[in-house]
Amino acid sequence: MASIREVAKLAQVAPSTVSRALNGSGYVAEETKEKIREAVDELDYVPNQWIRNLYQQKTGIIGVMTPEIIHPYFSSLWSFLELELHKYGYNMMLCNTSGKKEIEREYLDTLERNLFDGMIIGAAFLPDKYYKKIQKPIISLDRIISGVPLVTSDHVRGGDIAARKLLEKGCKRLLNLSDPNEKMVASSRSGESIIRVMEENGAEVVTESFLWIDVIHYSRSIRRAREILKAHPNLDGIVANDLCASAFLKIAGEMGISVPRDLKIIAYDGTYITDFNFKTIAAIQQDVALIAKEAVRVLIKLINRQPLENDEIYVPVHYKGGDTV
Amino acid sequence: MASIREVAKLAQVAPSTVSRALNGSGYVAEETKEKIREAVDELDYVPNQWIRNLYQQKTGIIGVMTPEIIHPYFSSLWSFLELELHKYGYNMMLCNTSGKKEIEREYLDTLERNLFDGMIIGAAFLPDKYYKKIQKPIISLDRIISGVPLVTSDHVRGGDIAARKLLEKGCKRLLNLSDPNEKMVASSRSGESIIRVMEENGAEVVTESFLWIDVIHYSRSIRRAREILKAHPNLDGIVANDLCASAFLKIAGEMGISVPRDLKIIAYDGTYITDFNFKTIAAIQQDVALIAKEAVRVLIKLINRQPLENDEIYVPVHYKGGDTV
Repeated sequence: MASIREVAKLAQVAPSTVSRALNGSGYVAEETKEKIREAVDELDYVPNQWIRNLYQQKTGIIGVMTPEIIHPYFSSLWSFLELELHKYGYNMMLCNTSGKKEIEREYLDTLERNLFDGMIIGAAFLPDKYYKKIQKPIISLDRIISGVPLVTSDHVRGGDIAARKLLEKGCKRLLNLSDPNEKMVASSRSGESIIRVMEENGAEVVTESFLWIDVIHYSRSIRRAREILKAHPNLDGIVANDLCASAFLKIAGEMGISVPRDLKIIAYDGTYITDFNFKTIAAIQQDVALIAKEAVRVLIKLINRQPLENDEIYVPVHYKGGDTV
Repeated sequence: MASIREVAKLAQVAPSTVSRALNGSGYVAEETKEKIREAVDELDYVPNQWIRNLYQQKTGIIGVMTPEIIHPYFSSLWSFLELELHKYGYNMMLCNTSGKKEIEREYLDTLERNLFDGMIIGAAFLPDKYYKKIQKPIISLDRIISGVPLVTSDHVRGGDIAARKLLEKGCKRLLNLSDPNEKMVASSRSGESIIRVMEENGAEVVTESFLWIDVIHYSRSIRRAREILKAHPNLDGIVANDLCASAFLKIAGEMGISVPRDLKIIAYDGTYITDFNFKTIAAIQQDVALIAKEAVRVLIKLINRQPLENDEIYVPVHYKGGDTV
């Protein structure tokens, strides 16, 4: 097998330059990198990263735990997160648990086996104890895990904005959706905030279950939205995640319910799919770019063993107007 | 640090059972696994998988190279792929290149560093030579790479079905979209097939560029769709990927073009978002579940060094009716 010296010789640079280029550990000009890369290819040089990593304890890879990748909120967030991680020289590997605890455990093992330098937890279903014993840098985006820094949207404010907008438009009977199985900060905090503000202002809140598994299978969302609108014909307001909101808009059309005249809809997340339909759906928009930026900033601090100024970071949300309120 | 013997003792099983359970290398009853897992947790036992893997050359992880994760075709496909890989005891790690060659190289290095047991290439931008020298099991889903097995939809047939459906409905002037930068089998083969069948039957085909980067940013898709429909007011048929098809449907509505009377639209991919709008978009549907199944079957054969009966597998596509033709 070729050595790093042979690579350096062929590329006509110093071995330390090859090392810097391959490790991303310092500045190397683009054209020099290209020459090194060509030499690496020509000589079939495989840096024995594995053995080196045994000493360095570094792989350059950050694991990102996601409950699924169908919902455009997650796919948007992970796209931004990846760009952010690249700025610091890290690659991202998406670990999709499909909400299964056994798979979540396996990915945590992967972290403990040192295949990742750190992990970002998009959603978690295992009890806190599995996270507490982890010595590696981790942060959470959507679940409160004691001892783990949290970077998330200001969902209390998000719920508040949504409720006040609906009240302003005259809503009296709001639909609130919940999934008893999931523990995401987004839905619990925004939901509580919406209910509080609506009830304080004399509106009625009807809560119905809408399982996450039904959210990410659109045909099931459609069926469930139809059931709910049939069971509650006098609803006049809905706040729901983007996919659900879209299903309710479609079913309202099918049932001859006029949006926004008889039913007002606000989506929660505000991804591109709220601009997708014949009516643009009004939305509370999470700032995925900023969440990604903050999450990576905090994670890099943990990796570098720098102190955090704050264990909980709340990223502002925004109201995006549309044709549905 | 605790040893495997201590774990076995606490779980009241043989050390070989612990080993089997942790390696997934043989049958262990669910409740036994649970006991072992509890013991592992209690003792904080970390199997030194890394060192072991240096000998075994196995990580249980398959890398999946994806150009992006926003388009629902990819997010659906990867969800199915992950379920399939789990059936064989593998975890999937999504490697998002954002279409950047440098990142693609880094992930290929990760494969060569033995962090993956194999790789599934969703889309690739690097020249073939980077793939040819790889000794590890890889398969391709959307690009022809010499020497690498291909599992893909029957796009020639897909294009044929779409073109004949449009001809049957009286289309005379079809819009064909292409991105000169991308090399996906899906768009090139289906596109060629559509053009051939349309022209053989006396219809005109107008080709316009539509960059992939515009496809995955919905606001850009909308802008580009508007430009194209303004430049070609007498188009009467469009075949385009799901996101584009949806943008054209929205803009047709905005411009007062009646769909399907004056303009017929067929989406190519047929993911859930074609059922999303006020009109269900007719589509050529790729069978993502079957693509995932076949891809994993072939990859496992490569990993086990079994002979392949076929280097190219074409998965049938289906026509899904809708309100747009």
